[in-house]
Amino acid sequence: MPQLQRLTISATQIENQQITLTPEQYHYLSRVLRLQTDDRFIAMNGQGQWWLAKLVNQQAEIIEPITIYTELPISITSIVALPKNGFDEVVKQITELGVTKIIPVISDRTLLKPSPQKIDRWRRIAIEAAEQSERQIVPEILEPIPFKNSFSLINGSKYICYARGNSPHLLNYLIPFPNTEITIATGPEGGWTEREIQEARAAGFQTVSLGKRILTAVLAPVVALSLVTATAEAASESPNFFKKSGL
Amino acid sequence: MPQLQRLTISATQIENQQITLTPEQYHYLSRVLRLQTDDRFIAMNGQGQWWLAKLVNQQAEIIEPITIYTELPISITSIVALPKNGFDEVVKQITELGVTKIIPVISDRTLLKPSPQKIDRWRRIAIEAAEQSERQIVPEILEPIPFKNSFSLINGSKYICYARGNSPHLLNYLIPFPNTEITIATGPEGGWTEREIQEARAAGFQTVSLGKRILTAVLAPVVALSLVTATAEAASESPNFFKKSGL
Repeated sequence: MPQLQRLTISATQIENQQITLTPEQYHYLSRVLRLQTDDRFIAMNGQGQWWLAKLVNQQAEIIEPITIYTELPISITSIVALPKNGFDEVVKQITELGVTKIIPVISDRTLLKPSPQKIDRWRRIAIEAAEQSERQIVPEILEPIPFKNSFSLINGSKYICYARGNSPHLLNYLIPFPNTEITIATGPEGGWTEREIQEARAAGFQTVSLGKRILTAVLAPVVALSLVTATAEAASESPNFFKKSGL
Repeated sequence: MPQLQRLTISATQIENQQITLTPEQYHYLSRVLRLQTDDRFIAMNGQGQWWLAKLVNQQAEIIEPITIYTELPISITSIVALPKNGFDEVVKQITELGVTKIIPVISDRTLLKPSPQKIDRWRRIAIEAAEQSERQIVPEILEPIPFKNSFSLINGSKYICYARGNSPHLLNYLIPFPNTEITIATGPEGGWTEREIQEARAAGFQTVSLGKRILTAVLAPVVALSLVTATAEAASESPNFFKKSGL
């Protein structure tokens, strides 16, 4: 049912197949999407559950649960040094790609500290992008923290993209696919400082390249997520895909 | 010399180690970048050659050729159905990634036909992005044409991204890397029509998926190029990278 509109609700809005809509949600369904009583839409709780629902007066009723699943089988965290501009687009695009958690970080070369309004805005963008890309999960976006403070929040395989370091290409670490939690850190305009790279290495990050051409701070996290999600998906679709390699 | 500024010139501007600058180029170097006589910059001809040059009065002199090479060993063509908005960003990002040729196409679901001013604008964006990403080649951008007319302009391996078709993931065709010219076509908002998919298949395109999550028309070409350039680069860096696979 790709043509149905999607709405993210919270679990507490559901009771006995009834969805209690907020005034904003009702306005969105009735005025923006122009749904009328008995028109159908998809309700998502942002944590993996979808329902086929219909509008009934100013509330909604659940018709049946939907069992489409578009999420990847692993958790992917994106640590992104806040760029001067364009972080809205980063949040939108890496959400479309399938990121699980986004940690915006303040790096040595980060110029500005975002306002709480910005953080709310990013969370709204993530909700919209998750709906548009037909995801079941809305990625969690943490408050911005210093880069170093993110180290204690992550587990599994950790990679830091380093443009000028002659490091092996990220793809070398994704084939065969590690099948663990994965974290990818990408730097700000001007790149990570030597000190930051040293600290990340000491914390278990592998330095990796995204190719010989220099990517902007806005494109790098999108490219990194493209590679992680594609290899994760290929590995989950055909478990023998990379196994044939004997790598 | 990553800190030097870059300027794209045409081959005809060079004679006997002298570069005859246009008034706009001189303005850019002297006013925008604030270079003075004897200050150095990098001159690029957009076709793979770079020179270390210096400003001398209102002209420039070549000091020596530069032999950094950041280009991929294969030709990559991106056929992109023009999205309603955001094509500037597509041109910028796929240029950063390493595309060789961009063919904007009018598809069944494309709404508008761009003006000649737009095309000039895309070409300027490509020049700037090639400079910023330290490429030697500026991708060629063709005039927009109907999708079908692009078929006669391409050779090698051809893939068309099809969001809802249950096709194999693009990565399946890139590992091991085909080592031919590669063309990737991505659709407009709402996707290619069934007729377009049939015509492309008849012309030798393989339908491929970019993953289960639905990407926007602006993100899809960027993701496709991320995968092609990463696999091309990994294959060229270590020829045995994918060979071990026995695939």
